[in-house]
This record gives sequence, structure tokens and C-alpha cells, in this order.
Amino acid sequence: MFKPTVPAWRIRSAISGIPSKNALILGERTILTRPTILLTATGRQEPSYFARHITSASTSRSSNPALSFPCLERNAERERSLDGGPEPAYDKIVSGYSTYHHSEPFKFVHGGVLPEFDIAYETWGTLNAAKDNAILLHTGLSASSHAKSHEKNTKDGWWEKFIGPGYPIDTNKFFVICTNALGGCYGSTGPSSIDPSNGERYATRFPIITIFDMIRAQFKLLDSLGIQKLHASVGSSMGGMQSLAAAALFPERVGRVVSISGAARSHPYSIALRHTQRQVLMADPNWREGFYYQGVPPHVGMKLARQIATISYRSGPEWEQRFGRKRANPDQTPALCPDFLIETYLDHQGERFCLQYDPNSLLYISKAMDMFDMSYPLPPDPNVHSPECHQQTQHKPVDCPISHPSPHQPLSSTTASPSDRAALVKGLSPITMPTLVLGVQSDILFPYWQQKEIADCLKEAGNRNVTYYELDAMYGHDTFLIDLVNIGGAVKGHLENVVTV
Amino acid sequence: MFKPTVPAWRIRSAISGIPSKNALILGERTILTRPTILLTATGRQEPSYFARHITSASTSRSSNPALSFPCLERNAERERSLDGGPEPAYDKIVSGYSTYHHSEPFKFVHGGVLPEFDIAYETWGTLNAAKDNAILLHTGLSASSHAKSHEKNTKDGWWEKFIGPGYPIDTNKFFVICTNALGGCYGSTGPSSIDPSNGERYATRFPIITIFDMIRAQFKLLDSLGIQKLHASVGSSMGGMQSLAAAALFPERVGRVVSISGAARSHPYSIALRHTQRQVLMADPNWREGFYYQGVPPHVGMKLARQIATISYRSGPEWEQRFGRKRANPDQTPALCPDFLIETYLDHQGERFCLQYDPNSLLYISKAMDMFDMSYPLPPDPNVHSPECHQQTQHKPVDCPISHPSPHQPLSSTTASPSDRAALVKGLSPITMPTLVLGVQSDILFPYWQQKEIADCLKEAGNRNVTYYELDAMYGHDTFLIDLVNIGGAVKGHLENVVTV
Repeated sequence: MFKPTVPAWRIRSAISGIPSKNALILGERTILTRPTILLTATGRQEPSYFARHITSASTSRSSNPALSFPCLERNAERERSLDGGPEPAYDKIVSGYSTYHHSEPFKFVHGGVLPEFDIAYETWGTLNAAKDNAILLHTGLSASSHAKSHEKNTKDGWWEKFIGPGYPIDTNKFFVICTNALGGCYGSTGPSSIDPSNGERYATRFPIITIFDMIRAQFKLLDSLGIQKLHASVGSSMGGMQSLAAAALFPERVGRVVSISGAARSHPYSIALRHTQRQVLMADPNWREGFYYQGVPPHVGMKLARQIATISYRSGPEWEQRFGRKRANPDQTPALCPDFLIETYLDHQGERFCLQYDPNSLLYISKAMDMFDMSYPLPPDPNVHSPECHQQTQHKPVDCPISHPSPHQPLSSTTASPSDRAALVKGLSPITMPTLVLGVQSDILFPYWQQKEIADCLKEAGNRNVTYYELDAMYGHDTFLIDLVNIGGAVKGHLENVVTV
Repeated sequence: MFKPTVPAWRIRSAISGIPSKNALILGERTILTRPTILLTATGRQEPSYFARHITSASTSRSSNPALSFPCLERNAERERSLDGGPEPAYDKIVSGYSTYHHSEPFKFVHGGVLPEFDIAYETWGTLNAAKDNAILLHTGLSASSHAKSHEKNTKDGWWEKFIGPGYPIDTNKFFVICTNALGGCYGSTGPSSIDPSNGERYATRFPIITIFDMIRAQFKLLDSLGIQKLHASVGSSMGGMQSLAAAALFPERVGRVVSISGAARSHPYSIALRHTQRQVLMADPNWREGFYYQGVPPHVGMKLARQIATISYRSGPEWEQRFGRKRANPDQTPALCPDFLIETYLDHQGERFCLQYDPNSLLYISKAMDMFDMSYPLPPDPNVHSPECHQQTQHKPVDCPISHPSPHQPLSSTTASPSDRAALVKGLSPITMPTLVLGVQSDILFPYWQQKEIADCLKEAGNRNVTYYELDAMYGHDTFLIDLVNIGGAVKGHLENVVTV
């Protein structure tokens, strides 16, 4: 690392390039360290140390000393401590999963193709002889297939207490399958995977993916397991969207539906929340239009994105009770770096996440959630309508034409009007099986009125087995991860209830 | 500007420094343009063009083409179109204001001092002979003193329709004063102002500022105008906080109080929302720890921060009605850059703001809002207790000791408990004058329960003239800027009502 030759307290500004031509104005002096020397000395990207402004010692004193910014220094320190080598292998962060390999080309709703793909999955319980006791569990945006600990991975899963013998999803009765979504980075094919056509990471050459593409890939896995019909399709958050999409795309293969804190179409407020996360991430110079895999990844952008996301996952009342106005270090003078306990909490959440999840997966899957809309017509399967792709062989460039724009435009271009409502009712109408819809009043990301919309539209379409619960819980969107009593009870009741329509 | 010699579509990644040592892996080729040549050619910071990855033409084809990112290109284009010269003079963006100059040193609650300061202000109506018809209007975070058009500045002000003859704040009756807050950039002294001690911009050598410091500076202006007692102290958002603070610090000088969508203390959810904005801004490499005034300012960080802020200013139901799922260009293939109308709206809001407001002012004033807490004891005036500062002469370095940490610690380190509540009641107890408190149910930044808390605590402290209104309006926090009927009516009624306690 480049060591400055001026005392640290004099280093006022670390800039990421070449200083302005006006840098000599107003008593400031700019020391230019020769970039070529830096290159030789460090062998890696060190933009912060290219050039420095230092305060000229000859001018008069300022009225006050400059503030310090330990939070920025910690970010820089993390980057320096990394080897500067390739991105960590995200699929190695989670272990003990199985992999379904699909060796045929797979086309996407909005154009683009994968010559082949993998789906990482884990299972709990036993598939019965009739193969009719399977539950397909859909995850939230960034979760892996590790919903529950097991022999090959003893770490707690993200729904550890919801799955097990006698638990809400009872492994004495059901065979539970959880997958890492297509587009993810925990073993399923996503932007960080190698494109067999050229041996490089897909990065932002990965096709724009929809929830419907993810579901179609999941059902290829079910085919391979010989499961013709699921006992139930269950999911929360993005998984709640997927659960509905699975039932609508494959109504004859889904016995029951559970959709928790999901939506039948994303509303603009939730799009806005995800939009800012994507923009913050893409603005990180290290993102490099998605081609960061051989350099330092955009950790700062990811950390910031996760902090914004965390705000949308929880609720004001919870934080009022948990953090109030507590400060991280009450003896410290207030500062612009994290200071209140809520700030250090957000900082910690971001820090933890930015090393664990692939930034491009976040962008693609976040966008898939924005685009989700169950309004009629649902996008047809591009693989069924373009048989020529199936003739390609594995590991060879695939020449399926990529349609821009796609012949199908599933994104509604209208506001919510009576006709939109009718389109949504029609889009949801294949879902005639018993369905549990569950919403949380303190959720600002997937507000409860969106869950109510699902339930109301299903009823309007003629489904006579719709159960709708609205929880007065304080954990906001994340309630589904926490509230074992209310969420767990509702799920167990729905899965095990004897239904007579 | 540096012109790449490879076709534009081949330029896949623009990085801000020196590429990783592993950059040659996997069929990618890195072209290093010599930084020293760039320095000569451009004379200004061009981190994005230091080095580029391009796809090696010799390897096999990828399965899909890379996505394009016009939104990032537009950001880069804005920076290139700027001269690279000094920051625009923010105090020139607003014109037609008067300036009060305070030529004595002014100390801050958390330590630090200004050797002198200016307060920009505008007035409407006429001060009567008794000088008892003045209304002091406090602004939101980033507003200027330009609340209403007038001869010297005919542009609409931020409360244009709320002020005027016969209007909610009736200029036939009242003399209205609006100031740009201390710490701002529209004519009042703030981080972008010149420190007379050394002739440089304060930048992050500006003292940490509190709402109480702002109020004390405002009352120096009132002193200079010969106004002993205000008819009313009126404000919304941060101005609602200030309105309470003014009444509590100077109870004998405030006749009535109006606090709209404000708070008696910031709660963790609003701190979290502002925290992410500050973090995003400070992460922009152009921010340079606040010393950006001679280079390209952190426009990208500001733009992102404003987009996050905009989400907290409005509400889901409004956007559902206004934008729904409309796309900006329905014929376009979905993309990771702004796509839905809500995204282009946010992008536009951010773009407009980032050229209009000083980033350091945003950081300091945003932090002041986080720290705001009316709990007893309120911070004593450091100027009263440290008379030695007053002996300093103008334009000379001021040697007032800067206490780190300040002897006063106004930041509560406890969660909301019964004793907190008691401290808040006691802190608000000087506010015995008639007070209107107004909250909006769809506000997530200053939720209505915070306004209810103000009203309840005032009543508990013995104030028998507390009016509390809760609006079922859909515009969220920004309702105070929009809802002339409900907000305007309440304000007019309160200001003109004959009060007999």
C-alpha cells in the first residue's frame, strides 16, 4: 500500500483521480503522487491514494478542525485487506446442496437464452411412493436453498423453526424442496456463473429474468424428481409471488398455495425502494457495468443497497422499541459517520451482506420483482414456441435469436383502472386450488392491501377456498422470518387441513 | 476528453483506478491507457477513463449480448459537460433576499465556533409600529428563504399559495419573515461559506450544528429587527421541530406555535432514512471528505441521496394512483436502468436537486434533524456561558476552546421509557402558548404518532391551548407543501383565532 509522507491529520481529501485545474486556489496545495509509481508499488486498484490535497501549513488556522470519517476509512480498509483477486465463489458460501443440471437450452420471456443451467436445491422429509407429498418452498430475493439445517449443512437455515417433524411444515408428513432461484448465486445458474459458450462469467450478458422464468426452471427440477403434482407451493416475499406464479402457470401440478407478504403485481412504492438500491449499486465505480469478477467487487454499493433494503424490511415501531435514540457510544461527540445505534445496526447489516451475495444477482432478481405482474395474459413459455433452440448441442454457442423487444410485453403500461383489475382477476383465475394469503399491517414493502388484492381477486375469479389473514405484527416485511406463532400456525393449518371444496 | 480507440460497444467496463493483477484471466484483455497522458490531455479528474476492459475479439461468442446502461452514461456525460471548475455558487441560485450579518463569534452546542455569520432572509407584509405582528417561518431541510414571490424575486416560493393578502398566512395582518437556516447554502453561513480565519471554505471544518443553534442564530436576526415578541413561530418538517425549539428556548418571545409534520424528537426510522442518504453521498469518491469545492462535486451521490429522500417524502397510495405500473417507454425491453415511470420520476427529482444544493449542507442539516430531541434538559447557550469568545475581533482566528465531547450531551442514550416520556414533557413544558400540531396519516418520515406525542406531552405539561389535527391525506410527508385546503385552513384558524386562555 502507498504510504503518504505527510502526517495523517493533514491529509484532508483523498480523491479518486486527477485533481481539478483549480486545485491551487485558496491556500490549498495539491500533492500529486505519480500514478505509475502507485501502479508498480501496489499492483492493484488504489484510486483513493492517487493524489491528495493537503492543507498548506503556511496559511492561517481554520476556525475549527476538520471532522474525521472512520466509517469511510473502514470501507477503504476492507478493500485493502482483500487480495484484489477474483470475487469469492458465492456458490461455496452455502454447502451441502444438491444440483439439478438441465442440459438443454432455456429461453427467457424477454429474450436471451442459457445453453444449459443448474438449480441448487435441498430437501427435507421423505417423498412417498405416490410422490404426492412434496412441498415446493420459494425463497425471498437473496436466500439460498438452505431453509433448514441438515446433515450435510448443520448451520441454521432461513426458516429453521418452520420446517421439521411436527413443525408448521411437518417433515413427518411432507417432502420439502427448496431451491436457489435461477439468477441467484448459491449454486443455481446466475450472472456469476460461467457461460459455456465463451468460458466467461455471464455478468450483464445474463438475460433479463422474470419470476415466470424462475418457476419454469424449478419445474424442470420437479420433472427430474418425478413429481407430477405438488401438495403445495409455499413462499414468502418474492417467494409469495413465485408461489402464485407456479399455481397459475402449472395449475394442474399444484395442490395448494401459500403466499405470505407477497403481491400479485409490484406497486410503484416497492419498485422505488428497489430502484434506489440498484442505482446505488450500479453507481459504485467498482461495479463496472457488471464485469467486476476479476477485480474488487462493488462492496460499498452493495453495503449501501443493503442498508436501504433493511429499512424496507422492518418497521418504525419495532426500531422505536429496539433502538429508540440509543447511541453507539454516548461519550462520543456527534458525527456524520454512524452514531446512533440504529445507524451502526444498518451499517453492520450492510457490511455482512456485501461479502455474501453477488451484486449482479441482486440487480437481476430485484428487477424481476419489479416486473412481476399476474395480469392476463401471462407470458407464454418461449421454449415451447421456439423449438429450434432445442436442436443446439451443449457447450456450443447458441444461436437462438434474441428478440428485442420481446414479442411478449408482460409489463402493463396502464395505471390501476377497472380494466386492470379485470386483467388481474383473469390472470389469477387458474388458481382454483385452496390458497392461503397472509399480509402484515406494518409491511411497507409489500403492504397488506396488496395481499388483500390477491385474496379479493381470487375470490372474484371464483376460488371458494381462499383464506386471508392480516397480522397486526410489528416486524414489517420480515415478520415471516420471525413470527413462528402466527405465521407458522396459519401455514400448518392450511397445509394439513382436510379440504372439501 | 480522452477518446477510446476501440468501438464503443466493445467497451465493457470503465474502472476508476488500476485494474486487478488478475485482469488477464478468462479471455478478457485489459487496455491500460497511460494515466500521465490522461492528466496532460484533460487537466481534470477522469477516473472513469483511466483504464478499460474490452472483450477480446479472439474468443468465442457469448450466449447473449451485454446489456447497455444509458443511465450511467448520462451521469458521466453531466460530469464531462461541467467545466471541472469550482462548485457553482449556491447562494446565487436564490436571489432577492436580505442578509443579516452577525459580526460576533457564535459558539455551537456541540463545540466549534463561527467567527461571524450571515442569515439570509425575506419578508412579506409590513411590521406594525408595535412590532408585534411578526411571524417567523421555519423551513424544511433544503429550502431557501424564498417562501413566496416578491418584487426582487418573482419566482414562485415553496409556500407560494400559503402566504399573501387574505391567504392562510395573511400579509394584510402579519409581517412574515423566512430565513435560510444556519448551515444552509442559500445565503446563510454554512459549510460552503468562506471561513474568515483562513480564507478557505469551511467544508467539514464547519461545526456540528443542532436545531437549537439554528434558532439562536435566527433570534439574533429578530434582535436586529427590533422584534421582541413574535405573533407566531410557524414551521413544517424540520421547520416544525424549529418552531417547537424556538418556543421552548424563548418562551417569552413567542406568542403562538404551529408545528406541521414535525417531531419533538427524531425516531430511529427517520434517522435510518437520513442515515442512508448521508452514507450514499459520503461514498461518492467526489465527496472527498467534504473538500470538493474546487473539483467536480459529488453529483452522483447527491442524486442518489435525493432519490432515497423522495421515497420518504411521498406515499405509496399517491404513487399507485399517479404512476401505477406505467413504463417510461412501453416499447422498450425491460432494463436495469430506469424503466418504470416511477423510476424516471425519481431519477428526474435527483438530477434536478443534485445541481441545486450543497452536499455538505445536506449532511450537516440532516444530522441536526437526527439529533433533535426536546427532552429535558435542553442544551444551554454556549455563548452565554463562555464570554471570553466575545472578546475576539472580526476576521481573526478565534481561539475559543472546542470541547470534544461537549460538556452538554443532549443526545439521549436511552430508549423510550416512562422516564423518557417525563423528560420530554418537561422539555416541552416552557411551551405554554397556544399551539397547533398537525400530522398526516400517510407520512412515514414523521409519522402522525410523533405529532400526537407532541400534543399529548404539551397537554400533560399543562398547556390548555393545544390543537391537534390528524389529516387523512395521501401525499405523505410533503402534504404540507400541497394541501392548501386542509393545512392552510388549520394554520389560518390558529393564527387569527382570538385566544383567551
